[in-house]
Amino acid sequence: MTVPLLARRDIDFFLFDWLKAHDLPCRNRYVEHSHENFSAFLDLCEDVAARYFAPHNKKGDAEEPQFDGESVTVIPEVKQALDAFVGADLLGITMDYEVGGSQLPRTVADAGLAWFAAANVSTYAYLMLTAANANLLMAHGSAEQIESFVKPMLKGEHLGTMCLSETEAGSSLADITTRAEPAQGGCYRLFGSKMWISGGDHELSNNIVHLVLAKISGGPAGAKGISLFVVPKFVVAADGTYQRNDVTLVGLNHKMGYRGTTNTVLAFGDGAHNPGGAAGAIGYLVGEPHYGLKYMFHMMNEARLAVGMGAVALGYTGYLKSVAYAKERRQGRAAKSAGVSAAPVAIIEHADVKRMLLAQKSYVEGAMALALFCSRLVDIAQSPLSPDEGVSAELMLDVLTPVAKSWPSQWCLEANHLAIQVHGGYGYSREYDVEQHYRDNRLNAIHEGTYGIQSLDLLGRKVGQLDGAGLAVLDSAVRNTIAEAAAHGGEVGVHATALTAAWTDLLSVTEVLLVHDDLEVSLANSAIYMEAFGHIVVAWIWLQLLCVVGARDGEFFDGKRQAGSFFFRYELPKTGAQLALLRSKDRTTVDMRPTWF
Amino acid sequence: MTVPLLARRDIDFFLFDWLKAHDLPCRNRYVEHSHENFSAFLDLCEDVAARYFAPHNKKGDAEEPQFDGESVTVIPEVKQALDAFVGADLLGITMDYEVGGSQLPRTVADAGLAWFAAANVSTYAYLMLTAANANLLMAHGSAEQIESFVKPMLKGEHLGTMCLSETEAGSSLADITTRAEPAQGGCYRLFGSKMWISGGDHELSNNIVHLVLAKISGGPAGAKGISLFVVPKFVVAADGTYQRNDVTLVGLNHKMGYRGTTNTVLAFGDGAHNPGGAAGAIGYLVGEPHYGLKYMFHMMNEARLAVGMGAVALGYTGYLKSVAYAKERRQGRAAKSAGVSAAPVAIIEHADVKRMLLAQKSYVEGAMALALFCSRLVDIAQSPLSPDEGVSAELMLDVLTPVAKSWPSQWCLEANHLAIQVHGGYGYSREYDVEQHYRDNRLNAIHEGTYGIQSLDLLGRKVGQLDGAGLAVLDSAVRNTIAEAAAHGGEVGVHATALTAAWTDLLSVTEVLLVHDDLEVSLANSAIYMEAFGHIVVAWIWLQLLCVVGARDGEFFDGKRQAGSFFFRYELPKTGAQLALLRSKDRTTVDMRPTWF
Repeated sequence: MTVPLLARRDIDFFLFDWLKAHDLPCRNRYVEHSHENFSAFLDLCEDVAARYFAPHNKKGDAEEPQFDGESVTVIPEVKQALDAFVGADLLGITMDYEVGGSQLPRTVADAGLAWFAAANVSTYAYLMLTAANANLLMAHGSAEQIESFVKPMLKGEHLGTMCLSETEAGSSLADITTRAEPAQGGCYRLFGSKMWISGGDHELSNNIVHLVLAKISGGPAGAKGISLFVVPKFVVAADGTYQRNDVTLVGLNHKMGYRGTTNTVLAFGDGAHNPGGAAGAIGYLVGEPHYGLKYMFHMMNEARLAVGMGAVALGYTGYLKSVAYAKERRQGRAAKSAGVSAAPVAIIEHADVKRMLLAQKSYVEGAMALALFCSRLVDIAQSPLSPDEGVSAELMLDVLTPVAKSWPSQWCLEANHLAIQVHGGYGYSREYDVEQHYRDNRLNAIHEGTYGIQSLDLLGRKVGQLDGAGLAVLDSAVRNTIAEAAAHGGEVGVHATALTAAWTDLLSVTEVLLVHDDLEVSLANSAIYMEAFGHIVVAWIWLQLLCVVGARDGEFFDGKRQAGSFFFRYELPKTGAQLALLRSKDRTTVDMRPTWF
Repeated sequence: MTVPLLARRDIDFFLFDWLKAHDLPCRNRYVEHSHENFSAFLDLCEDVAARYFAPHNKKGDAEEPQFDGESVTVIPEVKQALDAFVGADLLGITMDYEVGGSQLPRTVADAGLAWFAAANVSTYAYLMLTAANANLLMAHGSAEQIESFVKPMLKGEHLGTMCLSETEAGSSLADITTRAEPAQGGCYRLFGSKMWISGGDHELSNNIVHLVLAKISGGPAGAKGISLFVVPKFVVAADGTYQRNDVTLVGLNHKMGYRGTTNTVLAFGDGAHNPGGAAGAIGYLVGEPHYGLKYMFHMMNEARLAVGMGAVALGYTGYLKSVAYAKERRQGRAAKSAGVSAAPVAIIEHADVKRMLLAQKSYVEGAMALALFCSRLVDIAQSPLSPDEGVSAELMLDVLTPVAKSWPSQWCLEANHLAIQVHGGYGYSREYDVEQHYRDNRLNAIHEGTYGIQSLDLLGRKVGQLDGAGLAVLDSAVRNTIAEAAAHGGEVGVHATALTAAWTDLLSVTEVLLVHDDLEVSLANSAIYMEAFGHIVVAWIWLQLLCVVGARDGEFFDGKRQAGSFFFRYELPKTGAQLALLRSKDRTTVDMRPTWF
């Protein structure tokens, strides 16, 4: 039996029944689009992902990229998949018409692109990074940089990377030591090394466009002295030919999952090549000096949403596989059966298996909805119907971004854990898919800002900034949903009451934490704050979905009602203990001393 | 820096400060032992594990056993490790003197053997299985079977396996189809195939002793018709020479972790060999016909405790590695620091990192204590000071076994998850150890009875059986601890009050669930019941530890107090929402229909 990578019916429900994506073309940026081409785009994604990405997902995991000291070899299916993706004009799908993009709304684009993450997150990573790189240059690069780098990237001739981390600076980018020296012709020469660079070297494209954070000598200390540079693997020499830049692959990192994506240690300016006869890797400054981190954060917010969606896609596809397995696999008897003489039943009949499937369903559908909700905020912010609408969308997006990154990283991983459990021993074997999804998904709570970093962003910055303006926008939206749900009455009304209590409690705890005399204590449990915040936000998302579902007939809607109820009965109550702990400003972690471990 | 595999100081605390293992020699079975030889044994285990098991843990993971169609090749370090273990007389460490064992109490033995699971759980698995096999034969085998199989196993000449599961019968052993036909000379001929057999084939020993569940033709249907057989890879022919039995390796399974242990599909009686010129694999009946599952459960209870301890060991060693990493790795500034001009601090200074380490500490030390507590119950049951003491120990052990298997499988896996998170990107890479521990540990919620099966055992059988006699023994013990803790007053007294509330709530919910009109509804949330039960039991264990710690001076005790407080403040409150859900006899999962997914 072939299991679809994602459930199209469900995606259509989110996009059209709920988010009214077909109304997006009334916004300036998207006027040339229509419901029909949205659907065609989704068809296309499903088709390309299934044909070119899914078939080598296991192979890419088993046969990792190899570095022989000279070059990196990747299985040939990766290149074919990239070509198919680029050939279908998907790389610039959301970008401006003027650079060859399609200006598709993110809401629809992200839904479609989720198929690629579900099919093969490792191969898709090359494309996701390239798109993020191109977007950053579109926003902050010069016309010449767009011409030289963005356009070839959109054609798939160049692929892009993000070079932020170093061996001694990951979460704390302020401490990077890669330095840039001004050189002749207005360019810079870079020296240093970068760690964990995905797609950092390969033979998949004729050039690799690295976006590199470095400090211009003599600039301010810390984060305020970081600038951003384009450092291509090959530069154009004075005679117009391509010449090797001084970016050297030091080695590959070997990971638990995401094995199909090369992950590298790169040296810049180590002297292996001396382009133009001088030392250092040639780099071109993006925008103004010392604004690098700001530019990078523009990209990083987008990347964090993409990481969240990647986690959703893996959770979702694992869920579908475990449902299919549970329907086929026969084991044990029904609780009320006639005993051993009865035939074994499909395990999906067992309450505990249904619990594991319902939990997955409530996580992955809630997370998919949250991700698409955020994508829609991006679209609104990019093409608002009024200035106010745009500001509100940006404010809400700002607050939700750490949640949209982290909640799926936690709970869609948990979904993959449950998908393995539903499969029993088979789930632990590499003959089935779900163990790989679990390994791949484990990265998502780490890259693009760890869970802890996201939680500091949420509690230490986002909920309090601008006098809590972002939280106020969210508050208003939550209360609107609650009012609508209360009007539904019945089970949905019961859930509305539960959400009211949890939301009120969350706001009050937030106030307690923000009015602090000791920052360390207030922030000590930021991770638990984000966990509670995330669960309550997803409960709100589920309540919206349940309002759309209403009393509609059909098994699809029965399932939605049941999964929503599951979330309200099994999941939301978990936040009570978390909020009580937060309210107490517990000092257990603060008072713990390193030498006591 | 070399990180110890386990913390000897802590193990000594559990064994001697708390469990008074040095008093065990006052029991008949252990009279020849002493505190000194317990210590010498622990030294020995630490030494052999560190020298022969830990060094090839990564290599065994990277270079899996290979099957060329003829035989299975395992990296040579495995054989050297087995030889070192056997050479140190560790295989029969708890077995009777009369078969060459050492009659060491399980409490001490299990503590020592935990080093091997921490060092290399895949290599140790061959030994754990062999010991379990030998124990089963000691309990239920004939004198001849003990002579022919147990003695060579204790010398490491034979290794043992357990052949229970089949491709279509895992959780539901009643449905196995392997059959046994009576043959001449009082033996049987077996036909069928077995799945997931660890250690099922290799060249590590000159014989492999399979213990196989099969149905004798014409016997009762279901579980009541299952018998147990010894089926060696080689049998002694009429002329005294060894002859190949008809047990054929069909193939190897490839797993997410535990990769160093061969895991096999075996065919019995498929005609590849015809020992004695007749069809079928020769098997020798163990004990009486149709009692196979009962005998196997004797072993399985022991194996479940061993699986729990395996999970503990992986969680514990990952915890120590993440503490060491957090002390070395410098990143970011203290919350109160002077800003970027300050030097980066070790990440162990950050509250969120301390939270992740404290969570691990509270899980792995709580789980280790629970495991050793159960081992001590085994010792008491085996050599009680009075008949009453023996009965009580058995009753309590019966209730705690599913918890001691499952709680570590869940929470020490969570510890490994957090160990990865503390390491950041490095934790996700195979250059470090913790990702392997996580992958290895993921098996423990599956084998020897899944989490769901354990929870049905707990709620559907253990807490209610014999009019709740087991639960009553536990109740009495919990109340004793609470009384002692309340007398301590202070923080420990506060925890005692919290445990009283949780324990009372648990008992009352248990009553609600056991007085049922609908079994399916009562058992529907058995997994959540076990999760709450486990957390409350571990809170009780922690309270015992805190009573022992009292007000003693020193960083070791400061750390224990803090980790215990963490468990009471961060973990125990999680059970409130779970118990409320259980009390409501929630029908969400029962009412969910397969077609709604």
